[in-house]
Amino acid sequence: MPPSVTQTIRKTAATPPGFLDRDAFELKCVREMILVIQDLWELHSFEMLDTPIVEYTEALGKFLPDQDRPGAGVFSWQDADEHWLSLRYDLTAPLARFAAQNWNTLPKPYRNCRIGWVFRDEKPGLNRFRQFMQCDADILGVDSVMADAELFVLMAKTLEAIGCSPMSYEIRVNNRKTIDGLLFSMEPNEEPGTQSDRRLRILRGIDKLERLGIDGVTDLLGPGRMDESGDFTEGAKLRDPEIAKILLFLEAGTGTEKCSEETISTMEGLIGDNPIGREGISELRQMHEFVSDMGYSDSRFRLDPSVVRGLDYYTGLIYEANLLTGKDRLSSVGGGGRYNGLVTRFLPQVSLDDSAASGFSIGISRLFSILNGPEGPTSETRKLITGPVIIAAVEPSYSSHYQELATRLRQAGIKTEVYLGTSSLKSQMKYADRKNSPCVVLRGKMEMQQGIVQIKDLALGKELSKQISSNQEWRADRPAQISIHEDRMVEAVEEILAR
Amino acid sequence: MPPSVTQTIRKTAATPPGFLDRDAFELKCVREMILVIQDLWELHSFEMLDTPIVEYTEALGKFLPDQDRPGAGVFSWQDADEHWLSLRYDLTAPLARFAAQNWNTLPKPYRNCRIGWVFRDEKPGLNRFRQFMQCDADILGVDSVMADAELFVLMAKTLEAIGCSPMSYEIRVNNRKTIDGLLFSMEPNEEPGTQSDRRLRILRGIDKLERLGIDGVTDLLGPGRMDESGDFTEGAKLRDPEIAKILLFLEAGTGTEKCSEETISTMEGLIGDNPIGREGISELRQMHEFVSDMGYSDSRFRLDPSVVRGLDYYTGLIYEANLLTGKDRLSSVGGGGRYNGLVTRFLPQVSLDDSAASGFSIGISRLFSILNGPEGPTSETRKLITGPVIIAAVEPSYSSHYQELATRLRQAGIKTEVYLGTSSLKSQMKYADRKNSPCVVLRGKMEMQQGIVQIKDLALGKELSKQISSNQEWRADRPAQISIHEDRMVEAVEEILAR
Repeated sequence: MPPSVTQTIRKTAATPPGFLDRDAFELKCVREMILVIQDLWELHSFEMLDTPIVEYTEALGKFLPDQDRPGAGVFSWQDADEHWLSLRYDLTAPLARFAAQNWNTLPKPYRNCRIGWVFRDEKPGLNRFRQFMQCDADILGVDSVMADAELFVLMAKTLEAIGCSPMSYEIRVNNRKTIDGLLFSMEPNEEPGTQSDRRLRILRGIDKLERLGIDGVTDLLGPGRMDESGDFTEGAKLRDPEIAKILLFLEAGTGTEKCSEETISTMEGLIGDNPIGREGISELRQMHEFVSDMGYSDSRFRLDPSVVRGLDYYTGLIYEANLLTGKDRLSSVGGGGRYNGLVTRFLPQVSLDDSAASGFSIGISRLFSILNGPEGPTSETRKLITGPVIIAAVEPSYSSHYQELATRLRQAGIKTEVYLGTSSLKSQMKYADRKNSPCVVLRGKMEMQQGIVQIKDLALGKELSKQISSNQEWRADRPAQISIHEDRMVEAVEEILAR
Repeated sequence: MPPSVTQTIRKTAATPPGFLDRDAFELKCVREMILVIQDLWELHSFEMLDTPIVEYTEALGKFLPDQDRPGAGVFSWQDADEHWLSLRYDLTAPLARFAAQNWNTLPKPYRNCRIGWVFRDEKPGLNRFRQFMQCDADILGVDSVMADAELFVLMAKTLEAIGCSPMSYEIRVNNRKTIDGLLFSMEPNEEPGTQSDRRLRILRGIDKLERLGIDGVTDLLGPGRMDESGDFTEGAKLRDPEIAKILLFLEAGTGTEKCSEETISTMEGLIGDNPIGREGISELRQMHEFVSDMGYSDSRFRLDPSVVRGLDYYTGLIYEANLLTGKDRLSSVGGGGRYNGLVTRFLPQVSLDDSAASGFSIGISRLFSILNGPEGPTSETRKLITGPVIIAAVEPSYSSHYQELATRLRQAGIKTEVYLGTSSLKSQMKYADRKNSPCVVLRGKMEMQQGIVQIKDLALGKELSKQISSNQEWRADRPAQISIHEDRMVEAVEEILAR
């Protein structure tokens, strides 16, 4: 039961860490991105869906990486009826719940897409938030590499539609089956694809390659690893030759072409004749072929055996999109893959084949913050949003009349605001300046009698003020201020805006 | 700590009550609504903001009605550091937190707007959800009736922009100050505007007039009320003459014109010479005058002393928008008012005048579900969304070629999908039909050799099939199916779509 808070108590105004306020500039950019994505995905016949932000904890399942404690990573609480509820941590688990719930009435293949907020209860960091927006596209009910390839290409098209150039990113591809084949070749008694603790530990160890490097992964595959804070993560307890084999596998993609026969051969050699592993290799070849046929292979497709994807539900082809940001750093902006078992979790009577599923996710908040981060467009861009025309509050009894002037300007599509309040004209000018207003309309008793309005062009005024040194000269000339018949107000403002 | 859920466990696929999956039709309508609202509000110089869905419980405060238990109505939980977090229950409390946090750098007046999900932990019902979307516009830092009037008019413009005709709704207006004046006239020792338990009980009692009727309100103002389930709500313990006076006040607006002098006089008579009450009356008159000046009074403005608004933070002019739905039933679709104390909760050093605030909220989810409910457009409308052109999977080895055909159609802006999977042609036709597809493109080995495609016009086919009785005749004629040179495919599909 949360604390009782009375209305009079004083509080510190702050957001919890990792939860951000997002301003008009970000919202404008994100709105544009969403519209472009929705239109692109509709063109490709993906049907929009919105699932709730709150789900039963059990319906979401536990597929997040780093889950040594049950429930970690997910915001959860009990409702009045003692059911556990959670904030969704991705858009895939809720889709599986939705698909299972409506299985009999959905057209299959079911091509679906979602855009929305997801939540992770983890340590916030640079470009890592506890609430962030994702967009996902998925194809359910068909187990074919063409579906994976189509999704891969759609992901590439999406990134390019929202402004990433084809050379600024690559999508690294692997197959869970090749990793399973490799592990099976070392431990033939373990059934491939089962979610044994040991297998999960190995996958999670590999997934940390980029963050912890070879040494860290070696520890995680072996005895375990102590981090800087002294926390110990249990290892997978593999023997040294096994670890060496895995490391060889992970490095098979480095230093070669994006999708070389050399990499494939190294992978094949390490996997041996394990049928699951060979199936994985064959799917990778097919995927590359389809993606090439569709013209999206060059520069974008990279075969990388070290890609495992953190989420536990993947079962086949997997991929991860990385944006090349400044200083050759790669930032992950999304990923996806095949997750054939997820719907069957709810529907044991449906075969794995029928409930096949594949999809990808792009981090919209992440992409925005990378594109607009220190190495993206500077904060100056924000200034470029033109502010409103301000109707100054000169004569209090004219307030309704000022609203009428505003209506005339708005009818011409011009963003306009009547200054509310009783501040001095000087304060009102400062306000207009802060709001990046193009001009201020002034009308007092004198102007009313003469049937005119005064319009102060703020941008021009700033320009001229640089040239005029004397204060007297300024006052005498009133530069950048025009008197005009009230009927010509809209026209005059339009002229100023057109500059 | 939530339960540990293993991946193999079978679960029921369901959403928690009051949480809905929203389909493509709803999302399309809501997207349109949001775009219209954002553009309208930008034109009026309101700056978009998005605050997080999760806030510190203390930062949100407790302003929901019916809060007999602390924390009721709000989804809340403790994070790992034992801070209480909550899902926001409206968009006003987070704005107050944001404004306080950034008070010194915000331009004032601060004109702000938000659109987003809010959450209420209450019993779900018809058009009542536990997650729903609201849009809010607010003006902070200025305490003037013109600000309230401008917001009233913006609310009316917004409702009309998203499709409510001026005659289909009314906005009922009152002032918390008139109620405070009335209560003060009965209990002169209580300071008006203080959030005493008794005052809140009276306000909440009045707020239930529509739901419980005169008798229910009489009980709540008096000894208390037992509901059908046997739950007892404590009453405000007023004496009979006091209750009679309140009921007279509440009914002063019924059966008269929308804003009659008669209603005003009755209110004035009951309030007497209490200065707060008289100020409330004077503000109501001024509000009506401003709204009339702006041309939004007739039919839309109704003075109604029974309006109190459930949320506790209001301090002055308040209003509630009601949509006239079938059978003369009124549905509340939003409301707003002045809430001068909310920012000061965080900033005791800022004067109440400086931190003045006013705003309104429209329930987008609510509006959608009313407009599309049993008395809105029927479910047939959903069918009207044209489905994708389907490229049938006739010959498995042509899958990349089918993708290329799809690309050609998409480049012409035509929603297209390659059928994925290996079903029979008959199943593929059924699928196309279910997806409301305008036509299906077929290309097998024979068509490839001849350089042609077959296009099956599904709508025309359905039309013709009504006229053709014999099955044989049908097969011989193949109505609504055309063979065409592959270079003319896009053109032919465009012709079908144009019909």
